[in-house]
Amino acid sequence: MNGIVSGIIPPLLTPLTETGEVDYESLGNLVERLVGAGVDGIFVLGSSGEVAFLTDAVRDQVIAKVLELVDGRCPVYAGVIDTQTNRVIEHIQRAEKLGVQAVVATAPFYAITGPAEIEAHFRALRTATTLPIIAYDIPVCVHSKLAPALLVQLGAEGVLQGVKDSSGDDVSFRRLCMLNKAAGSPMKVLTGHEVVVDGSYLAGGDGCVPGLGNVDPSGYVRMWQAFQSGDLRQMKEEQDRLARLFEIVFTPVGKVGPAAGVGAFKTALELIGVIKTNTMSVPMTPISDSASREAIEKIVREVGLID
Amino acid sequence: MNGIVSGIIPPLLTPLTETGEVDYESLGNLVERLVGAGVDGIFVLGSSGEVAFLTDAVRDQVIAKVLELVDGRCPVYAGVIDTQTNRVIEHIQRAEKLGVQAVVATAPFYAITGPAEIEAHFRALRTATTLPIIAYDIPVCVHSKLAPALLVQLGAEGVLQGVKDSSGDDVSFRRLCMLNKAAGSPMKVLTGHEVVVDGSYLAGGDGCVPGLGNVDPSGYVRMWQAFQSGDLRQMKEEQDRLARLFEIVFTPVGKVGPAAGVGAFKTALELIGVIKTNTMSVPMTPISDSASREAIEKIVREVGLID
Amino acid sequence: MNGIVSGIIPPLLTPLTETGEVDYESLGNLVERLVGAGVDGIFVLGSSGEVAFLTDAVRDQVIAKVLELVDGRCPVYAGVIDTQTNRVIEHIQRAEKLGVQAVVATAPFYAITGPAEIEAHFRALRTATTLPIIAYDIPVCVHSKLAPALLVQLGAEGVLQGVKDSSGDDVSFRRLCMLNKAAGSPMKVLTGHEVVVDGSYLAGGDGCVPGLGNVDPSGYVRMWQAFQSGDLRQMKEEQDRLARLFEIVFTPVGKVGPAAGVGAFKTALELIGVIKTNTMSVPMTPISDSASREAIEKIVREVGLID
Amino acid sequence: MNGIVSGIIPPLLTPLTETGEVDYESLGNLVERLVGAGVDGIFVLGSSGEVAFLTDAVRDQVIAKVLELVDGRCPVYAGVIDTQTNRVIEHIQRAEKLGVQAVVATAPFYAITGPAEIEAHFRALRTATTLPIIAYDIPVCVHSKLAPALLVQLGAEGVLQGVKDSSGDDVSFRRLCMLNKAAGSPMKVLTGHEVVVDGSYLAGGDGCVPGLGNVDPSGYVRMWQAFQSGDLRQMKEEQDRLARLFEIVFTPVGKVGPAAGVGAFKTALELIGVIKTNTMSVPMTPISDSASREAIEKIVREVGLID
Repeated sequence: MNGIVSGIIPPLLTPLTETGEVDYESLGNLVERLVGAGVDGIFVLGSSGEVAFLTDAVRDQVIAKVLELVDGRCPVYAGVIDTQTNRVIEHIQRAEKLGVQAVVATAPFYAITGPAEIEAHFRALRTATTLPIIAYDIPVCVHSKLAPALLVQLGAEGVLQGVKDSSGDDVSFRRLCMLNKAAGSPMKVLTGHEVVVDGSYLAGGDGCVPGLGNVDPSGYVRMWQAFQSGDLRQMKEEQDRLARLFEIVFTPVGKVGPAAGVGAFKTALELIGVIKTNTMSVPMTPISDSASREAIEKIVREVGLID
Repeated sequence: MNGIVSGIIPPLLTPLTETGEVDYESLGNLVERLVGAGVDGIFVLGSSGEVAFLTDAVRDQVIAKVLELVDGRCPVYAGVIDTQTNRVIEHIQRAEKLGVQAVVATAPFYAITGPAEIEAHFRALRTATTLPIIAYDIPVCVHSKLAPALLVQLGAEGVLQGVKDSSGDDVSFRRLCMLNKAAGSPMKVLTGHEVVVDGSYLAGGDGCVPGLGNVDPSGYVRMWQAFQSGDLRQMKEEQDRLARLFEIVFTPVGKVGPAAGVGAFKTALELIGVIKTNTMSVPMTPISDSASREAIEKIVREVGLID
Repeated sequence: MNGIVSGIIPPLLTPLTETGEVDYESLGNLVERLVGAGVDGIFVLGSSGEVAFLTDAVRDQVIAKVLELVDGRCPVYAGVIDTQTNRVIEHIQRAEKLGVQAVVATAPFYAITGPAEIEAHFRALRTATTLPIIAYDIPVCVHSKLAPALLVQLGAEGVLQGVKDSSGDDVSFRRLCMLNKAAGSPMKVLTGHEVVVDGSYLAGGDGCVPGLGNVDPSGYVRMWQAFQSGDLRQMKEEQDRLARLFEIVFTPVGKVGPAAGVGAFKTALELIGVIKTNTMSVPMTPISDSASREAIEKIVREVGLID
Repeated sequence: MNGIVSGIIPPLLTPLTETGEVDYESLGNLVERLVGAGVDGIFVLGSSGEVAFLTDAVRDQVIAKVLELVDGRCPVYAGVIDTQTNRVIEHIQRAEKLGVQAVVATAPFYAITGPAEIEAHFRALRTATTLPIIAYDIPVCVHSKLAPALLVQLGAEGVLQGVKDSSGDDVSFRRLCMLNKAAGSPMKVLTGHEVVVDGSYLAGGDGCVPGLGNVDPSGYVRMWQAFQSGDLRQMKEEQDRLARLFEIVFTPVGKVGPAAGVGAFKTALELIGVIKTNTMSVPMTPISDSASREAIEKIVREVGLID
């Protein structure tokens, strides 16, 4: 079984046309932006990729197109997000056939499940594929938290090869890194939180899956390189700059969830000229009021991404 | 557009074989039990039907088989449960083609959405079908609550034809009934809570979607008839008896969510002889310890469903 | 040990002057309104009485004054709301010395406690007083739910003599009534939810502690009498009327919690002429915008409380 | 008005005798341990000090005794934790009279309050004292989160002089630091999370209020000094060691909240010989099973705090 890479693996946005189809030209521009910046991998169909909004047919098309665009320059990992085990297994098998290098799966959701079911879920996924599996810990979406001890147990047994931690619980993240290291580091532990990445590297994290990395992949690559070279002061300074950039997600008026966060990323990329529109999937609407757009533009300019 | 019936519309369980396939013989027995008891409709692929655990192919097979088994003796409504609008629309279109009489849809879930997106979601569903749409208010699964004022607004405009309220918020339920009545009763308002149905009828409810109605459909039919005939004392006594029966869901040791609730319903039906096994969908395990099974059997016997 | 009465026991509001002191003249008017309507008891210093906002000295003054005003015409129960056991015991001992007939205590709050601590808490309260103790189940304030099985166990042992259920969980309420009855009815089980009282009586409830009962005590007394006399139709009709009146709490713009609910009750009583101002405790502000006040007045007029 | 110090300000535990009184001899030992390690301040009557469990009389005695024991060697800040504004003001005025150097206040709790009331609450506290006020952001206890923008606004106006952030939301923490700095650093921003302190220093934090600092104050002092001297590698290594020590809070079987966390700290200090018993306030019980005690002892030994 292949391992999971360390470093920067942005969750790729899914650019849309104004009528809501995937905008493949913009997708190509975005992939080039990331690969050109030197990212270590690309995570397609994550929460930032609006995976929950896409039909199965569109999901497959996006995976296939990204694999074609990347063309082996870095590994491509695919989100296989669905409510419960058998539905997730179908996504895994389609993604495997399409040729991804790993899959990323959450705990079951919609129906309430306890720790025993969560464990059984990941064990069942393991039997369905030979691909590496990254557990995606995202309580804000699935409403349960993956316990560090369970994750490390599953890592030690070869069920899981990585964790993407978007739990927002940095105490748990450090415990996860510590327990994983004590178990011989069977998993790569990646943080999903864009503005506390420097702290997560100190805590033992192996890399980052930053949604904001669509907007500024080079910043995240530089921060990782600074950490790797032991220049912790430089690492912190890159993080401070990216934290200023992240303020774009707090500017949209009257929007919540991905309509604010992903919406701000798309708006920034439209302003930078990478994608054509900031259209969001139904039922979300794009950031269109001029106050929000100007606030985003001002921040993007301040950190030097547009002149 | 057809309306939604009043009365008893149980959410049909999905019996499984020991290896996890749909057990169509048991499904036939169960449908006959409900239709024979005089239910007013059948709701297939609800939370009690383990919808979140079933692949699209299995969902379609269940709908088709239930329509064939019911054969027009009562309307069949289908759950179209998925994360976001475009995925729900696909389920609606498949269910419509299969021939159901109405669809039942929740608010969007997984990705956070606000009130504006919830409203846009239901409006988008409306444009995709001519079938009646029942809004399914189930915060424990989707983690948002449907506001009575929004529901009644959508009802008055013809977007929604019914509400299945499984919110557990009876104050909100009475407000919904009151506002719906003041708007000319554009929707049927149905409760999903098995043990406070008598109170929901007093509050103005038009019927009930009781998971426990799989186990004792006749009890729910009698309770509804007592209410219709004005015999409120009899209504209350039927409810008290059904509340004693509902205690089966609190007996399973170490199980939560549907593994406890649906698991207890299936175990009771197995003991009564309606279905062959109490198998649950992966990653859930059936109730197999003898203490839990005996506790369920004792209760089922006490209320007179087995000798 | 004295028992707890059945029937209507409104949680008395605490009228304030414009500068925030207790308005004893208005308090006297309000007590006369309740006693004159034939309530079965008065619950002072509940959530509706703004207990969390009052200093110990003011709490004592309110208890003493209400006891003097009621003058034995009905029992007076006092809230002894505080974070943890030893602080609650101090309130109990002061209330006992002042002469109340029972105390009403929540689970511990602020610091997280589990089921074992909740049980130990109520057992410790029992050792500190000979007064009846009513457990106050109000998760929205204390963020834990009292389990029916624990409550009935404590009732059977003489630790508790009653439960005021403001949990909003009517399934749990019916289970509590059922288990309490099966144990020989050691406790009086009272609901705190104003608009589903008819259903709670069907479920086995022994009475009601309605905040709205400050505004219309006669309505709640009539509903209880209708239930007692077996006229369930009349019971439901009184409840429907009171549910319309309860809409006043949804009218205030931009207010949450007691600032909306108790604020609306106070505004209604000011409009009816029972209390002088609708002032709320710091940091809450009263309902002062004319749109909200007019909406409240319209509803109060429609149900016949003003001409 | 005096400012708030930077650096290490442990929230002092309150040692108890086996019968539950404050153990002043152990308190003296503990204070000497902290002052001797070079802490920058002591925070008495925080959550770790079991403030919610202590009566007003005991709170006053603890403050008075700690002031006497510290004798001016470092500033003493006191928690003024209570449900709502007027009750908090009473605590502030008593603490001010006793001579503390600052007070630490949470948002209102028990009764639901919104952002407007939270703002009014802190403004009302400001009018009641000339002492510096530290806002205590602890959603796990008070069930609301203090917004960075509001805190910085109140800081800029002189209402607040500091924030103790125990929210567990490190994204919010970095934003708070960033906004506070942009406003001219009117407040000291302190983290309450023991195992991600290195990250919080990178994020701009001015210090730490670690409960675990009762057990190992020297470790936290060394970590702060390493940060101050720019030795970020050493800072991280101290944090890794303290994270290993923090594992003591995950060892107690069947305990939650302070019964686990503070209970583990007390048990460790008893094992080290600083305090006489690990007694907890009613209704909590101490960690007494030998497995838990041995697990704690093993960890405390591994990090070198006992031989």
